[in-house]
Amino acid sequence: MVNTSHPGNIGAAARVMKNMSFSQLYLVEPKSFPNAESTAMAAGADNLLHHAKVVNSLSEALSGCALVFGTTARTRKIKHTIVEPRQAALLTSQRIFAEQEKKSEANDIAFVFGRERTGLTNEEVDLCEKLINIPCNDQFSSLNVASAVQIMAYELFLALREYEKDKPPQTDSIQYLASHDELELFFEHLQKTLVDIDFFDPAINPQIMPKLRHLYHRSELKKQEVNILRGILTATLKASKN
Amino acid sequence: MVNTSHPGNIGAAARVMKNMSFSQLYLVEPKSFPNAESTAMAAGADNLLHHAKVVNSLSEALSGCALVFGTTARTRKIKHTIVEPRQAALLTSQRIFAEQEKKSEANDIAFVFGRERTGLTNEEVDLCEKLINIPCNDQFSSLNVASAVQIMAYELFLALREYEKDKPPQTDSIQYLASHDELELFFEHLQKTLVDIDFFDPAINPQIMPKLRHLYHRSELKKQEVNILRGILTATLKASKN
Repeated sequence: MVNTSHPGNIGAAARVMKNMSFSQLYLVEPKSFPNAESTAMAAGADNLLHHAKVVNSLSEALSGCALVFGTTARTRKIKHTIVEPRQAALLTSQRIFAEQEKKSEANDIAFVFGRERTGLTNEEVDLCEKLINIPCNDQFSSLNVASAVQIMAYELFLALREYEKDKPPQTDSIQYLASHDELELFFEHLQKTLVDIDFFDPAINPQIMPKLRHLYHRSELKKQEVNILRGILTATLKASKN
Repeated sequence: MVNTSHPGNIGAAARVMKNMSFSQLYLVEPKSFPNAESTAMAAGADNLLHHAKVVNSLSEALSGCALVFGTTARTRKIKHTIVEPRQAALLTSQRIFAEQEKKSEANDIAFVFGRERTGLTNEEVDLCEKLINIPCNDQFSSLNVASAVQIMAYELFLALREYEKDKPPQTDSIQYLASHDELELFFEHLQKTLVDIDFFDPAINPQIMPKLRHLYHRSELKKQEVNILRGILTATLKASKN
């Protein structure tokens, strides 16, 4: 939860998470935490609050994740892949079991929930591989942040239960997806190279990197593909220095 | 909502109902209503509170309904048919359209939510045709009543949307996709550049281009994105000749 204003919402989110068997809560710059109102609203999910990790930036919270979903109420002017909670839950359960299969250490999947009024900033959205939009009344689409957590947690509970029932072995293609950190290192390498070859100056054209991020996020890069792309960048740098 | 203790829960329920396009709220003997806390938690769904019907008994609220679902956290010692929210939503949408078809006057479907601590009494449960149990962590299964309303309203929103789906396909986003020819020119440009910077020799590594094609095909490149990528290739070639 990013920069949450109302402590009650943090407590309510902890409760609905525990209701649906989730426990890892990260708080990025909460306005007030810990807070008695959070504890009251948690209604027995205090342990989630005690173990919540308070961090200073979203990127700090996401480090080590296999996959990151952001949530947004806006669906226009967004270039990310936008999925609904049910589809996100399916993708998550597939990914979790694939990461377990290959005994990956980076097997956490993150769901990012923005500020009560203003959601996530563009920079925060750009750290997410996919976006989730919760379908609702478009005349009254402002969901309480704990409600959004509730709906996503509920869908995840159902999807994970399905997988526990009969784990399908068709996880081959997912096993080799690049992790969040590997993607971030690639984007860093990409930007450095593009600057070195005078393709662009991020200060003058700040929209280029977000566009490239969207493009590559959509294609769900595999580890091997990231290696190829970074190999190209290394060759590019080397050639440009001849 | 039957005999709700906390006014905040009534407001929160109104908000999540409106979020999911529902409007008919019945309050059976609420402890306190109207109440400023309800209005605060409704956060813009005040109209549902203004139009809420306050009644003295559950049977009064249910009069004229086609079908009544009760909600329960208990699943043992109950002889009712127990369904999950998703199945209840499907049954509801089927029933609503069947009632509309036959122009029935009794086409309302009710969802009954009990007291915060003790739920519905046996007598109240007996007024319901079916019971809904929300799947959750059986070690922490006490859902906030507004959360239960949220989950049910969300499932209903999705189920009703399914029934109204037969609409023309959205072609807007498709218009801006790169054409096959544009993609082929990009791949040609890409291969030429990679050979020029000594990244690979297609005769020695014939698998590289197919992998890159696959990666970019998956992301469904837009025309503008192809232009950016080709701009990068042009800058790469230029830098390598310095």
